[in-house]
Amino acid sequence: MIFKKLTEEIKKKNCPICVGLDTRLEYLPEGFIKQFDIVNVQGVCEAIYEYNKQLIDELCSIIPSVKIQNAYYEMYGIEGIKTYKKTIDYARQKGLVVIVDVKRGDIGSTSSAYALAHLGKTPLLETHVPFGADIMTVNPYFGTDGVQPFIDVCKDENKGLFVLVKTSNPSSCEIQDLVLKSGKYVYENVADLVIKWGLDTIDKDCGYNAIGAVVGATHKSEGIKLRKLMKNTFFLVPGYGAQGATADDVAGMFDSMGGGAIVNSSRAILCAWKKSPELTFTEAAKKEVLLMRDSVNKAKNI
Amino acid sequence: MIFKKLTEEIKKKNCPICVGLDTRLEYLPEGFIKQFDIVNVQGVCEAIYEYNKQLIDELCSIIPSVKIQNAYYEMYGIEGIKTYKKTIDYARQKGLVVIVDVKRGDIGSTSSAYALAHLGKTPLLETHVPFGADIMTVNPYFGTDGVQPFIDVCKDENKGLFVLVKTSNPSSCEIQDLVLKSGKYVYENVADLVIKWGLDTIDKDCGYNAIGAVVGATHKSEGIKLRKLMKNTFFLVPGYGAQGATADDVAGMFDSMGGGAIVNSSRAILCAWKKSPELTFTEAAKKEVLLMRDSVNKAKNI
Repeated sequence: MIFKKLTEEIKKKNCPICVGLDTRLEYLPEGFIKQFDIVNVQGVCEAIYEYNKQLIDELCSIIPSVKIQNAYYEMYGIEGIKTYKKTIDYARQKGLVVIVDVKRGDIGSTSSAYALAHLGKTPLLETHVPFGADIMTVNPYFGTDGVQPFIDVCKDENKGLFVLVKTSNPSSCEIQDLVLKSGKYVYENVADLVIKWGLDTIDKDCGYNAIGAVVGATHKSEGIKLRKLMKNTFFLVPGYGAQGATADDVAGMFDSMGGGAIVNSSRAILCAWKKSPELTFTEAAKKEVLLMRDSVNKAKNI
Repeated sequence: MIFKKLTEEIKKKNCPICVGLDTRLEYLPEGFIKQFDIVNVQGVCEAIYEYNKQLIDELCSIIPSVKIQNAYYEMYGIEGIKTYKKTIDYARQKGLVVIVDVKRGDIGSTSSAYALAHLGKTPLLETHVPFGADIMTVNPYFGTDGVQPFIDVCKDENKGLFVLVKTSNPSSCEIQDLVLKSGKYVYENVADLVIKWGLDTIDKDCGYNAIGAVVGATHKSEGIKLRKLMKNTFFLVPGYGAQGATADDVAGMFDSMGGGAIVNSSRAILCAWKKSPELTFTEAAKKEVLLMRDSVNKAKNI
C-alpha cells in the first residue's frame, strides 16, 4: 500500500517533507541556464529536466517523496509532457514516492481515463503505462461517481489519491468555507466524503487508507479540526514557505504519533540558491530541506 | 471575442450543437480499426486521429464547434497528447471553434501555467503555442484567485472559459446541491461567482461575456433557473444523448432569442454507425447530428 511505503520512508529518513518540482525557467540560476539553448522549447525542457535530475540526485537520500506539478510541464506542450514523464520515471528509479499534482476530476467515464493515464495501465495488446505515478491529486467537485474510478485504479494498482479538501490559496474560502444549513462548512462535508471514499482501503499496518486529503498549510485551525475528524486519512500539506505557512502552522496536521502528513515546499527549495550564493543550487536546496525538516520535526506536537 | 464568433457560427449553420471528440478505441468500427496496427500505442493513436479527421471533414460544414476531452488522449501518454494537439490543430484549420475539456483549476501561479498551456502562448525567445484552443473548461473549487489567471489569458488572447457550475453526472448533487445557510445551493453561489468573473469581459455585439458556464443537460429545472440568473453567460450543455438528456431537457437553457447555449453530444455521434449499419461512420454521424440539431431547434422556447 502506497501510504504504508510513504510512512516507512518518512520514518526511515525522519523527514515528512515533499519537494515540489514546479520547475519554472525563472527559478533556474543564470549560470545553469547558459548551458542550454533556451531559444526554443526543446532547450528549455532540457534545462528543466537537468535541473530536476540534479535536485533528485542530491535529495533522494534525505527526502521520501517529490510532487510534480503538471501545469509547469503542460505549458511547454508535447516537449513539456515528455519532460514530465522523464521526471516521474527518474524520481521513481531513485526510490522516491512520486505524487503527480494534476487535480483531475470529471464524470465517471472520463475520470476512468484520467485514472489510467496517471496511475494505471491503458489496456492495449501490449501493456502501456502512460505516466505511472504513485499518487495523484483529485478535485472532488463532481462527487462520488466522478471519484470512484480513481479509487478503483488505486485498489487495482496499489496507488493512492490526495483529494482537495481545503486548499492553501486565499480565495479557497469562497466555495470551500461556505456555511451550510447544517452549520458545517462545505470543506467539512467534502472531508466526510473523503472519509467515506477511503473506508474499505485501510491498511492495518500503517493505519491509513488509500484516499488522502489536501489540506493547505496556510489553514492552521482548519488543519487541526480536520486531523481530528479524519483519523485514517493521510494529508498532503502544501503552502509551506513561499506561500507563507510556517512549521507552527503545520504541526497540528500530524497525528499524535507524529505521522499521517507530508508537507510540501516547492519555490523555497527550487530557488534556495538565491539565499545562499556561496553554494551550488543543489547544495542550497539540500540546506533548505534540512532546515525545513528540522523546523517541522521540532514543531510537531509529540 | 470568441463567444461572438461562436454565436455567429451557430446562427450561420443554424446548429447549436457541439460534437464531443471523446474518441475511445471501443467506439471505432472493427472494419476501420483493421487498417491500423493497434498492438501498440502509436497504432491506436493513428486510428483515433484518423477517425477524428474523417469526422471533422464530414461535419465541419454543419457544426460550429468540437469539444475535445483531454482524458481520452492523456490515457495514451505522450503519443496521446500528440494526437490531442493534432486534433485541435486540424479542427481549427477547418474553421471550428475548439473547446478543450480539461477541467483545470489550481492556485493562482499554477492556473497561470495551465492557462498559457491551453489557451495562450508560453513566453520563450521564440513564440510557442502549447495547445492553442479557443475555449477551455475550468473547475471553480479554488475560488477567484485560482480562476483569475484563466480570465487574464482570455482577455489577452480573445479566448473563453466554461466554468463548471452544475455538472451532468448523478453524484453532482453531493457537493453542488448542498444547501447553504443563506438558503441557496452551492452551485447557485458558484453561478454568482461566474457572473462576477465575467463582468468586465462582455461583448456588446453578442451580449455574452468571455466566462461561460457548464450546465448539465440532465438538470432541466436547474438549467432554467440558471438561465434566468446568468443573462450574459454562454452555456456549454453536456449530457445529451448517451447520458440520457433530451431536447426537451435542454430547451430552457437557451435565451429568449434561442441563443446563448451549445449542446454537446459525444458518444451518440461517435458511435452512430452502430444504429445505422447501412451507412459509413461519417454518414451515420452526420445523420445523428442533423437529427439532434432538428430536435434541439424544434424544442427551443422561441
